[in-house]
Amino acid sequence: MRPDEFRRHAHALVDWMADYLRDVGTLPITPDVAPGHIRERLPAVPPLDAEPFEALFDDFRSIVVPGMTHWNHPGWFAYFPCNNSPPSILGEMLTATIGAQGMSWATSPAATELEQVVMGWLRQMIGLPDGFTGVIQDTASTATLVALLTARERATGGRAGMDGLPADGPPLTVYASREAHSSVDKGVKLAGYGLERLRQIETDDALALLPDALAAAMAADRAAGFRPACVVATVGTTSSTAIDPLRPIAELCRRHNAWLHVDAAYAGAAAIVPELRPLFDGMEQADSVVFNPHKWLLTNFDCTAHFVRDPGALLATFQTAPEYLRTAYDDDVVNFRDWGIQLGRRFRALKLWFVIRSYGVEGLRALIRRHVALARELAGWIEADPEFELMAPVPFGLVCFRWRPAGRTEDQLDALNARLLAAVNAGRRRHLTHTRLGGRYVIRLVVGQRTTEREDVVAAWEAVRGAAVSGER
Amino acid sequence: MRPDEFRRHAHALVDWMADYLRDVGTLPITPDVAPGHIRERLPAVPPLDAEPFEALFDDFRSIVVPGMTHWNHPGWFAYFPCNNSPPSILGEMLTATIGAQGMSWATSPAATELEQVVMGWLRQMIGLPDGFTGVIQDTASTATLVALLTARERATGGRAGMDGLPADGPPLTVYASREAHSSVDKGVKLAGYGLERLRQIETDDALALLPDALAAAMAADRAAGFRPACVVATVGTTSSTAIDPLRPIAELCRRHNAWLHVDAAYAGAAAIVPELRPLFDGMEQADSVVFNPHKWLLTNFDCTAHFVRDPGALLATFQTAPEYLRTAYDDDVVNFRDWGIQLGRRFRALKLWFVIRSYGVEGLRALIRRHVALARELAGWIEADPEFELMAPVPFGLVCFRWRPAGRTEDQLDALNARLLAAVNAGRRRHLTHTRLGGRYVIRLVVGQRTTEREDVVAAWEAVRGAAVSGER
Repeated sequence: MRPDEFRRHAHALVDWMADYLRDVGTLPITPDVAPGHIRERLPAVPPLDAEPFEALFDDFRSIVVPGMTHWNHPGWFAYFPCNNSPPSILGEMLTATIGAQGMSWATSPAATELEQVVMGWLRQMIGLPDGFTGVIQDTASTATLVALLTARERATGGRAGMDGLPADGPPLTVYASREAHSSVDKGVKLAGYGLERLRQIETDDALALLPDALAAAMAADRAAGFRPACVVATVGTTSSTAIDPLRPIAELCRRHNAWLHVDAAYAGAAAIVPELRPLFDGMEQADSVVFNPHKWLLTNFDCTAHFVRDPGALLATFQTAPEYLRTAYDDDVVNFRDWGIQLGRRFRALKLWFVIRSYGVEGLRALIRRHVALARELAGWIEADPEFELMAPVPFGLVCFRWRPAGRTEDQLDALNARLLAAVNAGRRRHLTHTRLGGRYVIRLVVGQRTTEREDVVAAWEAVRGAAVSGER
Repeated sequence: MRPDEFRRHAHALVDWMADYLRDVGTLPITPDVAPGHIRERLPAVPPLDAEPFEALFDDFRSIVVPGMTHWNHPGWFAYFPCNNSPPSILGEMLTATIGAQGMSWATSPAATELEQVVMGWLRQMIGLPDGFTGVIQDTASTATLVALLTARERATGGRAGMDGLPADGPPLTVYASREAHSSVDKGVKLAGYGLERLRQIETDDALALLPDALAAAMAADRAAGFRPACVVATVGTTSSTAIDPLRPIAELCRRHNAWLHVDAAYAGAAAIVPELRPLFDGMEQADSVVFNPHKWLLTNFDCTAHFVRDPGALLATFQTAPEYLRTAYDDDVVNFRDWGIQLGRRFRALKLWFVIRSYGVEGLRALIRRHVALARELAGWIEADPEFELMAPVPFGLVCFRWRPAGRTEDQLDALNARLLAAVNAGRRRHLTHTRLGGRYVIRLVVGQRTTEREDVVAAWEAVRGAAVSGER
């Protein structure tokens, strides 16, 4: 494809893209397909000869798009949001075109330095002191694994990486609340601590980690010959956006010389709003903090912000220096390949730079304020309805609730709410997901999609109540 | 930014993008900047208020672009290539716009099923039997870490992940040639084997792993109470594209029940060319194979193809099933989040689908044939020049050579070639890198950029010879 052909096709795509951004709300939010449906429509063998782009674009529109779930639909209330935005998409277009590698400073100086600048902006925006330095990772799962690996190396003085686990000395333990994200379990397993060494700490009524229980677990492990290496505290758990109390947790980490990793994957974006900042009290005492601009800060996936107090701990864990990667600048610059698992790195800072400048900090604050206000308004409607029950506090954009008609057992309520959720989603005009809190089936509704307005939340609540009425008959 | 504003800005970007693709060869291939130069030109604090997109685009052109290294310049001979292509960029535009999450089948069925289809195509293209199943990872570093973790779990029956390393039983060892990529060292460290348990096996004159040395090391470890868990064999090492003999290595792996991971990160793309396929003899006996379409197969980074014989081994290592991720389809579908480290996943199959269909298998073969032929032609010129020396065989697109004027010591030659490389690169019209082979400084020239033509290779060789003549005076 010559540059002039590219120009023609790309202009055609831009019109489709702008139409999509305008009209996505009119599409079914989830596809009506059974497993295998898309695969069956595509040839099982690759084409030997070139095909015209028009044929590809036709297939994209007729086969792929009807098989997509539209995460950027204003009726998106599922999981956590995964927003993009027009300026972010523009950034991705340029990143894809230049196609540079940011593995080292020298392999694209502007990629590294823009990442430093934008991560400095983001650090200030969420209120972390300037003792923290940021790097973009792909996902929070990766950043949490990176933190667990770094904590492992620090706890063993680098011997785990050299001699294998366990190094001489006591076996290592990790702590997180029962409500922590599955990536903590996965990271503890992958980093070689072993899942048996992850202590899942009890939570209070608001599903936040109980510091006394953490203190007891750490002390018991010490007494039993273990070495507490890392605590993962969460601000905004995935099931219910519970907030672990960072200040007493940090104090325990200091006492035991354990690494404190704060997982604010979803909620961290809210720290840019001054009146929500108190929910992050103590975050500045962490060793590492992760949050995802690709969730609630309008930046295309993947873009995970990972802040660390001591980049030297990352280097001690991840740095390699084979001859073929050495450059004349290595003593004077940051080579971000040494700050994580991957060698190759996309130029992800560009889209984030475009987003922050296009909206301004105030514009991003306004978005988050709007979502949080809508979530709290919905929570008020739920509390006012005797047939429904709010199942967790609503500090951010997530509302956890269930339908609770009188005279049902807890097990019956679980089944009833699962059917209710299926009925709401079956309309394909909005999408909600579920979790379990305290063992009970709970519907999750997250207000967090960029274009979601009050009318979408109203309509979702009406759909839920309508499905409940139908379900009762 | 409203959809109509997006439309206007995106059309403007497309014209810039098409111009860039047409004219990148006229830009300096590397920027003339000292560390800190770009950072100094950007504000240290984020903007409170929104800025017009025109201002961002201006800054992009005047600050960012002059600070980039242009990996898609026809004078790119450095590292390994990191190609994009017009159809791949078109794919990235659509992926960014839809912004869907491919973590589960249900979170975007078309993303998962297109990945299955395209990885099936790729499997056939490189000649792997249908016992292999493919998944897209972000980088080869990640895929190699994934393989090492999977091998760890298999060797310990899953106990490493549960109880921590070492599980009951003998400590685990890993094997790779001295020429293996740094990601093997890094992965062995991160996976908790410990670098001391990585056996770096001797190589022959062509820098390929010596099977007898591997056999001896594995037997010695067995005798000493170790358990050989994994061998990483390389087809196309980073320094010199050496080819480890897969067939005898696979036989040793079978004998010791060790996992065989084949790292063909760069060279794997060449397996689509029938007459180069014999270089991959034995690859079909691997447990896992990795190669990067984002290197030599015209697909934007990141896009790593990872083939495994037993997806169940991946599931045993990476699967998690928290309540909030469960869907009604989980028993009937593939959820690719359980095939690797990350939970979130971009829709990367789309760009690869566009590339394979736009070029056709024959078009991609023609590209690789052209590059390999040019590399071999250059190797011929080097061999014919008494002042230069070819330093390794040229099975693919990499030519390793050095200048060897008479009467210099080996150390003098090292210094001379480092200066020669710096002089060639200083012109900023082409970019080459270096390595060390057998301890000696060697210049690496890879023919692999999509738009590199014979005249670019001729000009590079003339530049090298010209710099040598100047260096001699």
